[in-house]
Amino acid sequence: MDKIKIGVIGTGRIGQMHVENLANMRDNFEVTAIADPYAPNLAELAQKYQIPHYTNDYEKVLADPQIQAVVIASATNTHATIIEAAAKQNKSIFCEKPLAEDVPQIKQLLQVVKDNGTCLQVGFNRRFDHNFKQIHDYVKAGQIGTPQIIKISSRDPEPPSIDYVKVSGGLFNDMMIHDFDMARYLSDSEVVEVNAQGAVLVNPEIGEVGDIDTAIVTLKFANGALGVIDNSRQAVYGYDQRAEVFGSKGQAVSTNDRLNNVELDQNENVQLSEIPFFFIERYQQAYRDEFQAFYEAVTKKQAPVVDGLDGLKAVEIARACDQSLKTHQAVKL
Amino acid sequence: MDKIKIGVIGTGRIGQMHVENLANMRDNFEVTAIADPYAPNLAELAQKYQIPHYTNDYEKVLADPQIQAVVIASATNTHATIIEAAAKQNKSIFCEKPLAEDVPQIKQLLQVVKDNGTCLQVGFNRRFDHNFKQIHDYVKAGQIGTPQIIKISSRDPEPPSIDYVKVSGGLFNDMMIHDFDMARYLSDSEVVEVNAQGAVLVNPEIGEVGDIDTAIVTLKFANGALGVIDNSRQAVYGYDQRAEVFGSKGQAVSTNDRLNNVELDQNENVQLSEIPFFFIERYQQAYRDEFQAFYEAVTKKQAPVVDGLDGLKAVEIARACDQSLKTHQAVKL
Amino acid sequence: MDKIKIGVIGTGRIGQMHVENLANMRDNFEVTAIADPYAPNLAELAQKYQIPHYTNDYEKVLADPQIQAVVIASATNTHATIIEAAAKQNKSIFCEKPLAEDVPQIKQLLQVVKDNGTCLQVGFNRRFDHNFKQIHDYVKAGQIGTPQIIKISSRDPEPPSIDYVKVSGGLFNDMMIHDFDMARYLSDSEVVEVNAQGAVLVNPEIGEVGDIDTAIVTLKFANGALGVIDNSRQAVYGYDQRAEVFGSKGQAVSTNDRLNNVELDQNENVQLSEIPFFFIERYQQAYRDEFQAFYEAVTKKQAPVVDGLDGLKAVEIARACDQSLKTHQAVKL
Amino acid sequence: MDKIKIGVIGTGRIGQMHVENLANMRDNFEVTAIADPYAPNLAELAQKYQIPHYTNDYEKVLADPQIQAVVIASATNTHATIIEAAAKQNKSIFCEKPLAEDVPQIKQLLQVVKDNGTCLQVGFNRRFDHNFKQIHDYVKAGQIGTPQIIKISSRDPEPPSIDYVKVSGGLFNDMMIHDFDMARYLSDSEVVEVNAQGAVLVNPEIGEVGDIDTAIVTLKFANGALGVIDNSRQAVYGYDQRAEVFGSKGQAVSTNDRLNNVELDQNENVQLSEIPFFFIERYQQAYRDEFQAFYEAVTKKQAPVVDGLDGLKAVEIARACDQSLKTHQAVKL
Repeated sequence: MDKIKIGVIGTGRIGQMHVENLANMRDNFEVTAIADPYAPNLAELAQKYQIPHYTNDYEKVLADPQIQAVVIASATNTHATIIEAAAKQNKSIFCEKPLAEDVPQIKQLLQVVKDNGTCLQVGFNRRFDHNFKQIHDYVKAGQIGTPQIIKISSRDPEPPSIDYVKVSGGLFNDMMIHDFDMARYLSDSEVVEVNAQGAVLVNPEIGEVGDIDTAIVTLKFANGALGVIDNSRQAVYGYDQRAEVFGSKGQAVSTNDRLNNVELDQNENVQLSEIPFFFIERYQQAYRDEFQAFYEAVTKKQAPVVDGLDGLKAVEIARACDQSLKTHQAVKL
Repeated sequence: MDKIKIGVIGTGRIGQMHVENLANMRDNFEVTAIADPYAPNLAELAQKYQIPHYTNDYEKVLADPQIQAVVIASATNTHATIIEAAAKQNKSIFCEKPLAEDVPQIKQLLQVVKDNGTCLQVGFNRRFDHNFKQIHDYVKAGQIGTPQIIKISSRDPEPPSIDYVKVSGGLFNDMMIHDFDMARYLSDSEVVEVNAQGAVLVNPEIGEVGDIDTAIVTLKFANGALGVIDNSRQAVYGYDQRAEVFGSKGQAVSTNDRLNNVELDQNENVQLSEIPFFFIERYQQAYRDEFQAFYEAVTKKQAPVVDGLDGLKAVEIARACDQSLKTHQAVKL
Repeated sequence: MDKIKIGVIGTGRIGQMHVENLANMRDNFEVTAIADPYAPNLAELAQKYQIPHYTNDYEKVLADPQIQAVVIASATNTHATIIEAAAKQNKSIFCEKPLAEDVPQIKQLLQVVKDNGTCLQVGFNRRFDHNFKQIHDYVKAGQIGTPQIIKISSRDPEPPSIDYVKVSGGLFNDMMIHDFDMARYLSDSEVVEVNAQGAVLVNPEIGEVGDIDTAIVTLKFANGALGVIDNSRQAVYGYDQRAEVFGSKGQAVSTNDRLNNVELDQNENVQLSEIPFFFIERYQQAYRDEFQAFYEAVTKKQAPVVDGLDGLKAVEIARACDQSLKTHQAVKL
Repeated sequence: MDKIKIGVIGTGRIGQMHVENLANMRDNFEVTAIADPYAPNLAELAQKYQIPHYTNDYEKVLADPQIQAVVIASATNTHATIIEAAAKQNKSIFCEKPLAEDVPQIKQLLQVVKDNGTCLQVGFNRRFDHNFKQIHDYVKAGQIGTPQIIKISSRDPEPPSIDYVKVSGGLFNDMMIHDFDMARYLSDSEVVEVNAQGAVLVNPEIGEVGDIDTAIVTLKFANGALGVIDNSRQAVYGYDQRAEVFGSKGQAVSTNDRLNNVELDQNENVQLSEIPFFFIERYQQAYRDEFQAFYEAVTKKQAPVVDGLDGLKAVEIARACDQSLKTHQAVKL
């Protein structure tokens, strides 16, 4: 199996990006179908990337015996149904996070995936970031010894619209979920307790619809390490994505990315380069590299780097934070 | 009053450093007496710095009408008594932290200081560090807008002896107390709630004597901001002292100091400079600058940059953390 | 004209990279033909990128009236002939550097290009590097005022084979030629005098075949600025590409790229990330962006960012350096 | 010999700084006399630092048998006479650079020093800078292998007055002389050839009085390495002092110092810390450390780190640059 024949279900912004990345990976993938119930530009998209089939009905993609794998980038509330259907068709599955909105539903779909022996990779793209992967690799290689303190800062350049906030599931499920996965990835351990602090400091309207825009969560890990994540919906200086792991033999620390390495020195002014605007720009290469990993997992029949359990764990931690914030108490997992 | 005639009480390691710094500030200070009940080298010290009087009895220093100010660097359990006696003699007072070991005692001595209208500066030297002072100044000047997230990392290069740990008062009172003061200094606000997580990850013996060696504490501030402090008794790469304040208009972030700005690039190896060993080396200039501030406060009859209330607040926060660690609950102040 | 139908002549290492980059720019380019006299994998390449025509005879590409533009990535000694032929067929031309090996030949081909009113862009890819372009943009925008000192460091990770060195034309023509173009690009001025120092410090065999492996060249510019370029055939720590421009209002300085922003701190060891291996890796995005600029130039009928005169000037400066090295004297241009 | 009894001749700005530094080094030095023909504040200075003797006649200092060493910080045209007189009195000598204004005079005084077996250290303070000393130490320890390229940037924050420029001896003798010494120090080799480029880009008046304000000099070293120094009389962003040594095993590179390690990130603005204003601020610690080295040399009867030959060589290189600039040709030493 040289190339994987793959279909992409859901061709919104992220789905289109996936189509382009897969189309450019000519040695590994052949995009043979795209599906979206609404997208008006399906035909155009198919033509641009020379994709033979396009349809409004994803079931046609799943029914195509030539298609070996699918990317699910449709609305979150459709993930569970499509994953289960794809698993039953023995397709390898790449699904955008979150797998589903509630924990029992995820557990059920994971059982279906397991029963069908299907490969399922979840779209936690940040694991493939050049900085975070390097920290993880140092930890894995024992370069920092036993992890003791894990710190993650994750701040968006601007808050989403209030309409989005209303349906987002809240900051922990919508935003910090990436950091929960990152905490597990960097620490190489499971989160066993959370303690959440939240505040509305960016936009009062976010508070009015029952959400927070600023949060600090402390974590305890199974291996004894402590952790802390901070989130803000608005860093006016730009998208801020940093992490550090401190351990018995040292620490690995990343600074935020900038677009270039030029420093401008003027009288009373120093200017460093701009920051990549948001996740699409910052994680551009990571979005490509997660498919390389998916290719390896599928062709070598290995466990994917981010599997269904990872998808489940992040949601469980988010739910525990919701509870901690409400009860003002630590919540064990 | 051009020069302040000053006496130094307690000539251990820190006391001697203070003597040297004061002796070098020839325009501002004249060290006219030193006192220590035990120090065998008092005469030698007096000769080296050309100090006219030395004694085993600090009361002689306080009784000298020519002496305008005293530095108290004696054992912690003597601070309260000496401060009160000095205040009654109308001496300006510079006292090493902590002011005393328990909150009621501190409150009482602050009352005595107040009743006598004496200047009292507490030795939170880190407020005078080039990095932390710069962050504070940016916050004060409104450069980062309203503070929203305050983060402080403070890690020692090596743990103290178990004998020291036993009498230290515990990590929060002995080590993180500096960071509690820093949190107040950087946020320009009061801490209203703490939530402490602790662990024994460096040395099991520290746990056996009832202390912790690794901790993460989250803070809530009166102005609504959230904060987090992490401490470790052992950073194998060296003394690590960093802080950042994030706000509505931006952030100010410091990296750790190194001894020089040289990068060595070799095949498969990059070497940056060493880190200043410990607090004496890292805060060398800060220890000098705190006396410059004391000079300004005394001669201009201004409130000192770090006053008795600051000394009290840090101890109160430490006590609250002790309680939070024990009860696994948030503690309000 | 939405998409440019383009042919690629020469499908060696660089030619193949150009094919891939053009194939991925689906909105702007359509690769309709590739040509190479020897390449055994032409058919395979055509299939991979879905290119309708492939041939051993580049004249067929030039004769195809549907093809609007060509990329010339063939052997240097074929450039002049192909450029002239392409110009006469009114193709827009993107040609790898150097345009030709000697100055009169370049002047002649530029005349042909001019007579035919054709767009000619030269492959000085470094102008599109994120760092160097930023410095250039700061200079252009007046941020550093009048340029006074231009400094460029350019060092390869490992020397080429002696066989390559023998036919390379020498360090100035083969390697520093990029920096001569960079000096003109960054200073926004012409080089009017050079003074070359060279040495054989890396590999004595390079000296035995009449070349140097280490060089420092000083430059004088028409606008009065001074400049200096240093080259080494071997930086054991990796490919080193830096520049700075100092002027009346400030300076813009770039540091070398690394693969990520992670710092590993251990006891007695600090590790920064690896450096991108060589030009293919370092200038990956620049190789893409130069085609974006070519697209703009062709479709908007603008002068290309790097034109034929730029190709000529760099060769002239290299020749002057050869002479300066030989005569131990400054050479005016 | 525990403490060196030392006299300071010349109590202008630099002389006073030396007095303070020596007075603070209580374990090593005892300043027993100061001399200056004009200084109106001699008595006050003596009182402040508790120096027993002060005089307008430096010969009295030299005649005092209790004084073991002298610091010469008087006007340059008095250096030779005082050095010779001090040498004849067997005083150890620390003399500010330059030793004298012309080469034969320096050679003569070095002979007198040699004949009297006296220790002579020259005030090239930059050798004691934390950055430059680190680079030197890496080179000495073989960490960069054989030096191949030495680069030094040295730029003042503002040009001196035209009156000063007139009597300065020119940029090479007044300013770049420090860098000539640095080039020898960092390369651990002798300069054998120079090639000087100069320009008037900062202030036309500097050109009118026959000097330059911007210069690039290339160097050849006895060990085969190449070097380059750039100077500007005006870096509007502040005093800029950097160096790098590139060799067969790697490179050591320093960035410029800043007052602290804080980065302020705002929307469309990033602010790094200020740069130390000028040499007094930047080399504050180096000015102290050069006396520590002097103490070691005198008490251990070792050759000083910067000796008379170093003082001679720097002047010789400056003279060669004057000639190269005039003749537009390389000048061999």
